[in-house]
Amino acid sequence: MPKYSSPEVPLDRIFHALADLSRRTMVERLARGPASVTELARPFDMALPSVVQHLGVLESAGIVTSTKVGRIRTCQLVPAALAPATDWIGRQRLPAEQRLDRLGAYLQADVKHVTKQATSKEQRK
Amino acid sequence: MPKYSSPEVPLDRIFHALADLSRRTMVERLARGPASVTELARPFDMALPSVVQHLGVLESAGIVTSTKVGRIRTCQLVPAALAPATDWIGRQRLPAEQRLDRLGAYLQADVKHVTKQATSKEQRK
Repeated sequence: MPKYSSPEVPLDRIFHALADLSRRTMVERLARGPASVTELARPFDMALPSVVQHLGVLESAGIVTSTKVGRIRTCQLVPAALAPATDWIGRQRLPAEQRLDRLGAYLQADVKHVTKQATSKEQRK
Repeated sequence: MPKYSSPEVPLDRIFHALADLSRRTMVERLARGPASVTELARPFDMALPSVVQHLGVLESAGIVTSTKVGRIRTCQLVPAALAPATDWIGRQRLPAEQRLDRLGAYLQADVKHVTKQATSKEQRK
């Protein structure tokens, strides 16, 4: 096990679930409200078993839950299940961006210093 | 093509690149600063070609860039490349959470109303 990793097993499933346009499209639809499997399948040129398989991947990642009443299965988005993904990305972006900002500020100060030196050299000629 | 999707081809690659603990560990290391391929490989019990392959997946997603000087290849994180992933998740979470908040407020108001009705019925006895 690498020494600087944390045990983020579910992140594999969350990111894998989101790495597919069809599944993201289902999440986009469910962000607007619950929907039946038939409704979710409608915009796709896809067999119902494939739709159900995609929903299974989303359910195993905890992003979607479903309940069956009679013959109708209704799916619902679990927005909080996406939080670990946003949090992880945020933890990487922030220090990296701060480091780049500091580097940018340093380079800008350096350019100003070099320009100033060049100007005073020019004036002394 | 489903009617409510947007052409987010690169999101597939970004999310796929992040759906692996080894690759996320490499990103975590690079968030602290640039590193050579050998440095990145160190904490893993993994052959160098596998490390290079993982880095290739991160590079094809635009998350990592690398430059070779002499025999040393140095890798660097591109934090801005992660922005589309955070943005997409944010766009789904916000409306879904607002909807749940509204539902919560409605249910709370309903509970209060029912409790008030029950109390006044009790008093009238």
